[in-house]
Amino acid sequence: MIEDKNPQRTPLSELGEFALIEHLTKNFDVKHESTVKSIGDDAAVINPENKNIVVTTDLLVEGVHFDLSYAPLKHLGYKAVVVNLSDVYAMNAKATQITVSIAVSNRFPLEALEELYAGIETASKIYNIDVVGGDTTSSNSGLMISVTAIGEVEKGQEVYRSGAKPNDLLVLSGDLGGAYMGLQVLEREKEVFKVDPNNQPDLDAYTYIMERQLKPEARKDIIDLLKDLDVKPTSMIDVSDGLSSEILHLCKASKVGCDLYEDKIPLDPQVISTCEEFDIDSTTIALNGGEDYELLMTISQEDYPKIKANPNLTVIGYITEESAGAHLVTRGETKIQLQAQGWKTFKE
Amino acid sequence: MIEDKNPQRTPLSELGEFALIEHLTKNFDVKHESTVKSIGDDAAVINPENKNIVVTTDLLVEGVHFDLSYAPLKHLGYKAVVVNLSDVYAMNAKATQITVSIAVSNRFPLEALEELYAGIETASKIYNIDVVGGDTTSSNSGLMISVTAIGEVEKGQEVYRSGAKPNDLLVLSGDLGGAYMGLQVLEREKEVFKVDPNNQPDLDAYTYIMERQLKPEARKDIIDLLKDLDVKPTSMIDVSDGLSSEILHLCKASKVGCDLYEDKIPLDPQVISTCEEFDIDSTTIALNGGEDYELLMTISQEDYPKIKANPNLTVIGYITEESAGAHLVTRGETKIQLQAQGWKTFKE
Repeated sequence: MIEDKNPQRTPLSELGEFALIEHLTKNFDVKHESTVKSIGDDAAVINPENKNIVVTTDLLVEGVHFDLSYAPLKHLGYKAVVVNLSDVYAMNAKATQITVSIAVSNRFPLEALEELYAGIETASKIYNIDVVGGDTTSSNSGLMISVTAIGEVEKGQEVYRSGAKPNDLLVLSGDLGGAYMGLQVLEREKEVFKVDPNNQPDLDAYTYIMERQLKPEARKDIIDLLKDLDVKPTSMIDVSDGLSSEILHLCKASKVGCDLYEDKIPLDPQVISTCEEFDIDSTTIALNGGEDYELLMTISQEDYPKIKANPNLTVIGYITEESAGAHLVTRGETKIQLQAQGWKTFKE
Repeated sequence: MIEDKNPQRTPLSELGEFALIEHLTKNFDVKHESTVKSIGDDAAVINPENKNIVVTTDLLVEGVHFDLSYAPLKHLGYKAVVVNLSDVYAMNAKATQITVSIAVSNRFPLEALEELYAGIETASKIYNIDVVGGDTTSSNSGLMISVTAIGEVEKGQEVYRSGAKPNDLLVLSGDLGGAYMGLQVLEREKEVFKVDPNNQPDLDAYTYIMERQLKPEARKDIIDLLKDLDVKPTSMIDVSDGLSSEILHLCKASKVGCDLYEDKIPLDPQVISTCEEFDIDSTTIALNGGEDYELLMTISQEDYPKIKANPNLTVIGYITEESAGAHLVTRGETKIQLQAQGWKTFKE
């Protein structure tokens, strides 16, 4: 689907590892004073001043997490950064530095890696982070990207999964299901392309959900917003594996239960219409879809006035005692126990 | 060569990703007060107090960096940690935390990952570090291990590659060439094994060099020693790609030249005898062999009295003006320009 019109293909073997890293990272400038030493030594040096540091890491594997037949490399580089930043924000922290390691087979020319790094660079500009290190190596098969993200947070301002209390409100940023339905559309178009490579798909009806899949954003804005609103969530997690799975993580870590209201789950109109087109239940998609990278948090009831007018935040339920369990309250007002479908990485 | 006598093979698909991580990391205890939050949230939280933080990352790929036909998984887990710690020590820092991400195909049973993690746990005990996070995912082909190591260093005590000055002494810890010659022996035995699986190799003459290859150590002791001796090197780097390559990195970063004395390069007797057996020049191996994970540093001449009696440190040359270039002074007292052969990751 993605046609490479660029005829230039420089084999990676023409450059050594060090020349390659130097070439790919030459545009990365240092934005943070806390970055004392960036790329180019045995390790990066960071001065955290009086803050705490948060660290998180994620691995994206070709054929498991992405399909290069429809994921442009630039978007992939962008996404690899964003999914890690999302975890930093979920700690109520500011993302400041990342390291990027890639393993890549010789079938990729230099120009492909340049595209990948262009996406990494774009993300680092938009999210204001420094790329301070990494590793580049060959692989015998596909492409693999390992990103470690570092952030800073005022001591005591960290928000864990474990702080939710009964009667706290369950609050979600943005809307759900878009990334999953975007993937369904892309998979369908890939099948069409296999049968008829000349088919020009009309994807106008799917722009939002495709972008949610191919170029997700992390909710840096929500962390800034919470600070402006003077709200410190009692617990928080990012929604990468579907709402059910994340709610259950929060409940388990906090030793609480919860009631989630089906009619409160925010869905974009494109998600609803595409679910209808594919004949899939949109609640199922919101609960189990994954890759939305929204923030799920709990807040104390007394903070409700501060957030109620905000279009970025939706109250979708409330926390109960642990003994009550975690349930979905359906539109028909029946209670169904929440189950984590999520995303199973190891399939039979 | 390594026979698995354990008949138990639990498929990874029996566990979900979260259960798998929980299972593999259940023995990891927290050793550092600076580890505020370890595995189990969106990110780890570290309190650096008033120190600077160093961060480094390395990726080990099956078929590129290791061969499972002779690298036991436990050793591999150990090595994956050690190669990263080596970079932390090369900054004159104390290693404190790591994250470990693995991508693994379904052909590995749970018991294999347990072995790998046993090695990671052993390294974390010996080097006194906390495993604070990671990611576990499937891969379509082999095994890949991505480790990020974090360390702390008093502000201003960092040692970069860039501080060497003319007349500084070039100093090396330990000895060189062992890891490379160990690999040659292992590769030879693999070929023998292919022809005659019942052959019981006598490897007594190679114990040191095989261990250097399969279970290398990082020179934490040297960082402690330098502190005890009150010596702050003017520059430092770890020797992972062969002495030539590392010297050239130091010279380039410091804008200096150097004279390296062939007769000063420390070699273990097993390296010398194995080089003779394989009919390879031992200096070539020391210069280009790689994976020794010793520390190469420069120190001011005035610090010489502090280190001269120490058996762990050898003066192997001295720093010159940049215009003089970087040379090997041979036993025959001819000067040969140093060239980085090192290790080329991207081959044609």
